[in-house]
Amino acid sequence: MSKWIYDFGDGKAEGTAAMRDLLGGKGANLAEMSSLGLPVPLGFTITTEVCTYFTENGETYPEDLKAGVTDYLGLIEKALGRTFGGAEKPLLVSVRSGSRASMPGMMDTVLNLGLNDTTVEGLVRDSGDERFAYDSYRRFIQMYGDVVLGVDHHNFEDLLEDHKADQGVDLDTDLTADHLKALVEEYLAKVEEMYGKPFPQDPTDQLWGAIGAVFGSWMNDRAQTYRRLHAIPSDWGTAVNVQAMVFGNMGEDCATGVCFTRNPSDGENAFYGEFLVNAQGEDVVAGIRTPQPLTEAGKLDTAPDLPSMEMALPALYADLCDVREKLEHHYTDMQDMEFTVERSKLWMLQTRTGKRTTKAALKIATDMVGEGLIDKNEAIRRIDAVQLDQLLHPTLDTEAERDLLGHGLPASPGAATGRIVFNAKDAEDWSARDEKVILVRQETSPEDIGGMHVSEAILTTRGGMTSHAAVVARGMGIPCVSGAGDLRVDTDARVLVALGEELSEGDVITVDGTTGQIIRGAMPMIQPELSGDFALLMEWVDEVRTMGVRANAETPKDAEMALSFGAEGIGLSRTEHMFFDPERIIHMREMILATDEDQRRRALDSLLPYQRKDFVDLFTIMGGLPITIRLLDPPLNEFLPHTDEDMAEVAKAAGTSMEAIRTRLAELDESNPMLGHRGCRLGITYPEIYEMQVRAIFEAAADVQKTGTPVKPEIMIPLVSVKAEFEILKALVDRVARDVEAETGEDIDYMTGTMIELPRAALRAGEIAEGAEFFSFGTNDLTQTTYGFSRDDIGHFLDTYHAQGLLVEDPFVTIDRDGVGELVRIGAERGRAVRADLKLGICGEHGGDPASVAFCQEIGLDYVSCSPYRVPIARLAAAQAALGKDADKGSEDK
Amino acid sequence: MSKWIYDFGDGKAEGTAAMRDLLGGKGANLAEMSSLGLPVPLGFTITTEVCTYFTENGETYPEDLKAGVTDYLGLIEKALGRTFGGAEKPLLVSVRSGSRASMPGMMDTVLNLGLNDTTVEGLVRDSGDERFAYDSYRRFIQMYGDVVLGVDHHNFEDLLEDHKADQGVDLDTDLTADHLKALVEEYLAKVEEMYGKPFPQDPTDQLWGAIGAVFGSWMNDRAQTYRRLHAIPSDWGTAVNVQAMVFGNMGEDCATGVCFTRNPSDGENAFYGEFLVNAQGEDVVAGIRTPQPLTEAGKLDTAPDLPSMEMALPALYADLCDVREKLEHHYTDMQDMEFTVERSKLWMLQTRTGKRTTKAALKIATDMVGEGLIDKNEAIRRIDAVQLDQLLHPTLDTEAERDLLGHGLPASPGAATGRIVFNAKDAEDWSARDEKVILVRQETSPEDIGGMHVSEAILTTRGGMTSHAAVVARGMGIPCVSGAGDLRVDTDARVLVALGEELSEGDVITVDGTTGQIIRGAMPMIQPELSGDFALLMEWVDEVRTMGVRANAETPKDAEMALSFGAEGIGLSRTEHMFFDPERIIHMREMILATDEDQRRRALDSLLPYQRKDFVDLFTIMGGLPITIRLLDPPLNEFLPHTDEDMAEVAKAAGTSMEAIRTRLAELDESNPMLGHRGCRLGITYPEIYEMQVRAIFEAAADVQKTGTPVKPEIMIPLVSVKAEFEILKALVDRVARDVEAETGEDIDYMTGTMIELPRAALRAGEIAEGAEFFSFGTNDLTQTTYGFSRDDIGHFLDTYHAQGLLVEDPFVTIDRDGVGELVRIGAERGRAVRADLKLGICGEHGGDPASVAFCQEIGLDYVSCSPYRVPIARLAAAQAALGKDADKGSEDK
Repeated sequence: MSKWIYDFGDGKAEGTAAMRDLLGGKGANLAEMSSLGLPVPLGFTITTEVCTYFTENGETYPEDLKAGVTDYLGLIEKALGRTFGGAEKPLLVSVRSGSRASMPGMMDTVLNLGLNDTTVEGLVRDSGDERFAYDSYRRFIQMYGDVVLGVDHHNFEDLLEDHKADQGVDLDTDLTADHLKALVEEYLAKVEEMYGKPFPQDPTDQLWGAIGAVFGSWMNDRAQTYRRLHAIPSDWGTAVNVQAMVFGNMGEDCATGVCFTRNPSDGENAFYGEFLVNAQGEDVVAGIRTPQPLTEAGKLDTAPDLPSMEMALPALYADLCDVREKLEHHYTDMQDMEFTVERSKLWMLQTRTGKRTTKAALKIATDMVGEGLIDKNEAIRRIDAVQLDQLLHPTLDTEAERDLLGHGLPASPGAATGRIVFNAKDAEDWSARDEKVILVRQETSPEDIGGMHVSEAILTTRGGMTSHAAVVARGMGIPCVSGAGDLRVDTDARVLVALGEELSEGDVITVDGTTGQIIRGAMPMIQPELSGDFALLMEWVDEVRTMGVRANAETPKDAEMALSFGAEGIGLSRTEHMFFDPERIIHMREMILATDEDQRRRALDSLLPYQRKDFVDLFTIMGGLPITIRLLDPPLNEFLPHTDEDMAEVAKAAGTSMEAIRTRLAELDESNPMLGHRGCRLGITYPEIYEMQVRAIFEAAADVQKTGTPVKPEIMIPLVSVKAEFEILKALVDRVARDVEAETGEDIDYMTGTMIELPRAALRAGEIAEGAEFFSFGTNDLTQTTYGFSRDDIGHFLDTYHAQGLLVEDPFVTIDRDGVGELVRIGAERGRAVRADLKLGICGEHGGDPASVAFCQEIGLDYVSCSPYRVPIARLAAAQAALGKDADKGSEDK
Repeated sequence: MSKWIYDFGDGKAEGTAAMRDLLGGKGANLAEMSSLGLPVPLGFTITTEVCTYFTENGETYPEDLKAGVTDYLGLIEKALGRTFGGAEKPLLVSVRSGSRASMPGMMDTVLNLGLNDTTVEGLVRDSGDERFAYDSYRRFIQMYGDVVLGVDHHNFEDLLEDHKADQGVDLDTDLTADHLKALVEEYLAKVEEMYGKPFPQDPTDQLWGAIGAVFGSWMNDRAQTYRRLHAIPSDWGTAVNVQAMVFGNMGEDCATGVCFTRNPSDGENAFYGEFLVNAQGEDVVAGIRTPQPLTEAGKLDTAPDLPSMEMALPALYADLCDVREKLEHHYTDMQDMEFTVERSKLWMLQTRTGKRTTKAALKIATDMVGEGLIDKNEAIRRIDAVQLDQLLHPTLDTEAERDLLGHGLPASPGAATGRIVFNAKDAEDWSARDEKVILVRQETSPEDIGGMHVSEAILTTRGGMTSHAAVVARGMGIPCVSGAGDLRVDTDARVLVALGEELSEGDVITVDGTTGQIIRGAMPMIQPELSGDFALLMEWVDEVRTMGVRANAETPKDAEMALSFGAEGIGLSRTEHMFFDPERIIHMREMILATDEDQRRRALDSLLPYQRKDFVDLFTIMGGLPITIRLLDPPLNEFLPHTDEDMAEVAKAAGTSMEAIRTRLAELDESNPMLGHRGCRLGITYPEIYEMQVRAIFEAAADVQKTGTPVKPEIMIPLVSVKAEFEILKALVDRVARDVEAETGEDIDYMTGTMIELPRAALRAGEIAEGAEFFSFGTNDLTQTTYGFSRDDIGHFLDTYHAQGLLVEDPFVTIDRDGVGELVRIGAERGRAVRADLKLGICGEHGGDPASVAFCQEIGLDYVSCSPYRVPIARLAAAQAALGKDADKGSEDK
């Protein structure tokens, strides 16, 4: 018989932090805190296995569960001298979800459970505070009604607002016990009206209703959306934590708060948090009241006018500092904690690894190495390579004038410009039209996740640094300004009012999440500083990693950028990008429109000097680092004009007729250009094109080598599917190389290889490797052909596929290990079997994706190549892969 | 040290027929005939290994070869008492190629080698016939000049014609010895003029020149074309046969001929052949003189006015009959022999397995089983499955009136209609424009191979039943009428004159190769009779084969045709083909243009009855045989109108605007529709479409089952790349099936499976098989994605790829075993590993291609499915595969 329940509290626990999979993060850490002797209210955890049972068995429970819950509840009753449902000293509990991966705001919580018309009177007597008791009952009805019975919270809020208006008061706290009693009656009537049945008065019914709601919420749409976005498997399940209530809202000697052992925004080793006096926990997180700072130092950052806990409640603050010390040393990582003070006694309700900005993560990790808490390898593991991106993008130019619209809390760093949208749906719609958007809300909620994900930045007018918007934006690496109270949002009218002026949907603003500023219009951005903690970590990273990291680059600017980000060569230089310059494309078009080989050769002769110059620049900049140069790849009609105007211009310039251009366009038109006349197929049918390119490469190499700069060209033949294609074109390369060597007297050290980007090439890698000296896996095209997905067309069904969980990851972002990955593995193995020193790399978009980089390490590639901006990400990911960073660990940190 | 040379002749030989790979077909059979005691002139074979050496070593020979040739030549000199290059009794030799696979007319031959200004006088004295000697010298100079020295034969023919004109004679035979002497002088001068050097007088130089020309010709363009067309590897090489000359042109007691042990056209067990008195062998094959029949019975078929050999040379005819008897019993197959009579002595110059029409092949194979010469399995192996096609196509309706243009020899059976073209190049050009052409020539030559291959039929005005045109056409299975002497061709003017009337390029004629008739215009055709030998062989075939054979069919007509050809079910019913009917497509278009699901469902409701009717018909016709029904596969915009006219019509009918249609077209437009929104991706995004189709299938199944006819639907989900796609759609199928079963009370026995047509599906076949009950390999799309070849676009480079030998076979015709085949094998293995009884089939075009069928047998598929016409081919190929028919054997028979 399985053990379904684990208890905690009172300095001991059946579980430990290591039992996260079974108890969920919250339950495991409650158990761990108990064992550490920290003050944790008594409670128990129903395991994730029950959730799985529940999901798989038509929302039923294991048969022995009910008895178990009764038993464990009995133990709490006994320890506290309270009775669940008792008329005197009633036991009230919270019911909270807690899954293996932290999923902020995604799961449902019910507080004050156990209250009914009878027990509320017991609570009156027990607390001596009628107002508190009925406020608790009111909150419970609202929360339970909303979460368990499906009566939307607006129903209750409307009644509350009406009531306040009737009484002529502004604040909830102005309502008396009698008002609240009347409100409870109204709430109960509203539930019966909307739900069709009376509010359940039996606490046991309440409890099982709440447990079922938590388990049921695991499969709700927003949880599924979150899991899809974070690649969390559906079968992990959530645990349920049932815990005796402690009250932060029982009077002025009560409080509740959230704190971080270090600053989650910049990583400073300073205690950091927010609290509210006489409040329940959700009041802080929900961002409805602006909370007070934890410390005096913290006042500067957030709410300078409110007293800090350090000053207001010094003894309790000292207790909390002890907890901080103990937990950070125990977990050796920055912790995010929730606490409640009930009648001047501190209770810990949660601890977890704290989310942090990448900047903070870097500082915390490098500081902790300095403090001896962790080693360098652990520091490397701690940084989320995906989020490193945050540091690598431009921030606002501090010199530029800012047309300020307002100011809020610097909730998630980085800056972004975009068009205003007022709801998540609009954000997704605009974004689908390739518009950059900034989501502006009073406050965000889990329903907004999808829209937040596609936004450049988030701006809210309410909520603090730990509000939903702030937490989620930091997690996503999106800039966020929260609690910008001097701005006003009218969501229905789609209007943002700032400085008395209305901004409408589509208006452009800039949001600076590092300073909290909201600025009118677009702003100039500046490059990030890649020094300090970043540079230190990158030094450690380069000591650890075993794979090389190169960049994809064609222009001198890209090549220089790549070097500055630490690229060790160019892994993909797409020569066709060099032909789109206006003075070049005309020759390219002449070449394509040529009616015979002679004409074609003349046009190519005109292109040769340009192409040679390109390579002279690249060789010079890269100074001896290897450069993989891919010969012409796209179908020729990508270079031809397609509008009448352009065609007329080209006809004139190329001395031909519109008719001739149309004819050629029709000839070159293809049903499926991705599978058409491109890549090495062009090299086979028009060898003079490749000859020109190869000549340009070798002439450039000879020129540069003559100046004393070493050169290392790697000629890459694209789209090979048949061994003979490679062989014929390698012979061409060798012949031209010999010619140029003879002409210039320079011996060039070069390699010839191929892209493995078609399933057949991967399967036939053995025979291709007989001639090829290197393979570069072109996983973009390999993904297209392996799945039969056209990257340009996948939008027609990708959303549906994501929504139905058919694709967890976009296979164009993270390599599909099972399918595409198997072909890459086969290609690598068969190639190496024939040529042991075959150089293997990857040059698709996957080269800059950490999960894909880990895969590349696993199968033994020599290097990855990605866009210049992603080079540091790839370096870090390669180091983590070399350390064998656990993939699960990665998701937990999210 | 390798043995490079093998001798033969005089009743013994170093080689045997089994050494075909080393000695080539001709050399191996000359050795075998010698050993059988047949009269074979002395000679020796230089092996194919020398050819390989020659090709790989820059056209040089193994160092010990020269001495070997001298030694072997010395043995012949000694045996015959003649001297190579001797002034008296000179030894003359023929030099002929002979490769492992018979390649008619593709390789070069030199006769009378050894003649020069001195030896020709020796030949005069030796033969006592000055005219013969100088005619031989003249022939030798022409042949050697053409083949070895590259002086085109037209140069010599022009001189000959001029000479005849000067002398006022019509026939070569009217020229006297003196004329020929003068002509020899002119020939030698012409060679010196064109070749730049004198004609080689040293016989040893002549010999090595000829040997080099034969080996060199292995790599010439026409040989390469032939090999590409017949999938013969380039590394097989050719042997060279050097043999003492015997002369069929030394007088009226000399002759030369070609004969078949049975009739190669209809397979009758009757001796069959042609000969010419006082002629050299090439005179018969070249078709320049119309030859005499071998037998009296044969006179009726060919040349009724000329005396037969049976009558004219009864003793030699009797000798030849003995040879026939001996060879056919020895080889147990029909032989094609060449013989020469020199001064009343019979010499055998060649025997080989005779090419034959498919009709003849069937008769010969079934007769030989009856005669006890071979067994049934061998009979099955003997039929070329590719050529079976010949028997399965319509022939001319005998009732229809024929507007006869003329008559020739029935050289290759079958009838065809097409447009006249006058040279091979035009044939290829017209054919590339999808025109059906008939190639009309005076006589064909090896240069015409390419053009013959694309023609529907061949018509020549000269040449006999064994002329180049006749032999090649029979080999290709193309109808041919040869020697139609009452028609006249003016190739330059592109005119065919028949009955005094001119027909031009592009005019339509019909050619009946079975009767020899040439008919004006197109003709009605009738279905072939599939009884007699065919039916008998098919009976044996079905006893032997282990794979099932199904047909791809949608319409009742196709389904009935499939049954008549022996299909055991339908392997692919493409439901989209059913939507193109005018009264249906309007609903289809309404469905596509619908702006919401309701509208879409209404349009689908209108389609349902049509679709149900289709399936009622199919189930009824197939009466319990399995039918694999593929749900909608192509992208939706294939059903939309694309011209303004059509759009206007649809807009009116569908009650929408042109604008709406244009918008929808733009929405549905895809860059690469082959990789786009199609197949199961439609089923996922528009489940109501698949629901309608599945409902139609099950309602039809229930209707038919109620009448007592069993039904066996197999629902096939196309284009699966992810397991979940299949699972979601299988759930849909099961749900609709349960609904219909509940509504109708009929339990339908059905299966749900998928097409494996994407590389990822093949790789993930294991997990897909957890749900799928059958796989059908869709090798068309699998070939597209594995190679990255769009079938629609491959024409842009396929010719170049064939020309450069990059692709030996078109991978869309014969499965690419190495790449696509590996994925099919992986799919089959992984699928079966999970589900041992997984039903496996193939439904691409490959299902009707014998080489691909053999592959399917190898990897253990349960069935193949192909177009109805190809069902008998697939049945035969499956039987041959079950018997393990050797692939090489197949090519030899070509």
